[in-house]
Amino acid sequence: MRRNEILATISVDCVIFGYYENELSVLVRKEQVPYNDEIIEEWKLPGNHVRRDEDINATAARILKEQTGLEGIFVKQFWIFSAPDRLRRRPQDFEWVKPRLLDERVLTVGFYSLINIASIDNSKLIDVAKWINAYEISQLMFDHNEIFDEALKKLRYDLLHEPLIFELLPEKFTLTQMQNVYEVVFDTTYDKRNFRRKINKMPYLIQLDEIQTGVSHKPARYYSFDRDIYEKNRSERFDFRV
Amino acid sequence: MRRNEILATISVDCVIFGYYENELSVLVRKEQVPYNDEIIEEWKLPGNHVRRDEDINATAARILKEQTGLEGIFVKQFWIFSAPDRLRRRPQDFEWVKPRLLDERVLTVGFYSLINIASIDNSKLIDVAKWINAYEISQLMFDHNEIFDEALKKLRYDLLHEPLIFELLPEKFTLTQMQNVYEVVFDTTYDKRNFRRKINKMPYLIQLDEIQTGVSHKPARYYSFDRDIYEKNRSERFDFRV
Repeated sequence: MRRNEILATISVDCVIFGYYENELSVLVRKEQVPYNDEIIEEWKLPGNHVRRDEDINATAARILKEQTGLEGIFVKQFWIFSAPDRLRRRPQDFEWVKPRLLDERVLTVGFYSLINIASIDNSKLIDVAKWINAYEISQLMFDHNEIFDEALKKLRYDLLHEPLIFELLPEKFTLTQMQNVYEVVFDTTYDKRNFRRKINKMPYLIQLDEIQTGVSHKPARYYSFDRDIYEKNRSERFDFRV
Repeated sequence: MRRNEILATISVDCVIFGYYENELSVLVRKEQVPYNDEIIEEWKLPGNHVRRDEDINATAARILKEQTGLEGIFVKQFWIFSAPDRLRRRPQDFEWVKPRLLDERVLTVGFYSLINIASIDNSKLIDVAKWINAYEISQLMFDHNEIFDEALKKLRYDLLHEPLIFELLPEKFTLTQMQNVYEVVFDTTYDKRNFRRKINKMPYLIQLDEIQTGVSHKPARYYSFDRDIYEKNRSERFDFRV
């Protein structure tokens, strides 16, 4: 990559959320950072500069491919982080990034992505990448904690307004599985009866003629999401959500 | 402004929506564009480059101030437009912009803004700016029609989810005024009874002990928006809106 092939002042950073067995994770990558005559390990979100011939969605897809081996994953831009001092929050961050920069001012476009970890091949992850629990994130480099916090807020907002939850569920799922995903993403617990009452108002949630097999408890019924019914029922409303 | 004081590849473009007497408008500005040995008039959204010492919100506020004289207006980033060919959609656009550019690749951050035109001093508008009906926009320069279309979509989405509608209403308003704003923004008409039924579900809409005076029709009651009640009633829900 020749240096003039990238846009010096624009990057993309990706918050890749993963769900697996009642845990919400986020993918971070390790960097070796020289600081005070030592090499310390620091973690950051996967990111990269925008290339001259790319739109930013292509940049996000490329970062995902390069760092996770994954293609065709849902990605969504959610905010631009543009504080002039964003690379200089801690001296070690700036020391590390400085030789990599063409310009000391870089705006970054935050993308988030949503993966059902059970459905992917984790062996494709690059070896400096790892999944960490989304609720146990330590200090990341630059403004990456802020980017993560905003991504989580946006993920929750979007989950309440779009049928994104089904990205995290298998094709057929039980209502308990569905409740678990909501509980993990919103970091809370719901009363089972209240939850089912709300769920019952979703006309696009289809009860299948099929129940679990091979479970030790009373087998639960499977459900699936019907996108056609969802699209047909979409309408504009006034209540702007309270 | 020295040329190295701006970020060459990043700009902000503003879709400033104005509401006045049952009409939704958008602010555009005129440019003199040389083309085929003539000078033609073209229209574009107000926009400018990001300065080196600014975050993008400051850029948006500056553009609003410079082009409309307005300060302290609600502005919100909504999308980044990053197609590599976005300045070259028509030859006359690129010919006009080329001498103004430090780099031929410019990403732009779209902001929208919402103004009750009755509450502002229109004499502060720069003389090449004008309000045009939002539903009668002709061809704008670059990708600015696309930016406008996305802003309108985002405005409508946000109006259904946030108490933005009150930015367009006076402190005290009648339900007919409120219905008019919704009808204009969504470019539709609502049945009065259905509309009032929906409105009645808004606990933060306060009926005042005051009615219109000096009107020829039966005077209507005034209402106001109670932000405290709104904030208290905000809660997370599951139905992700259909």
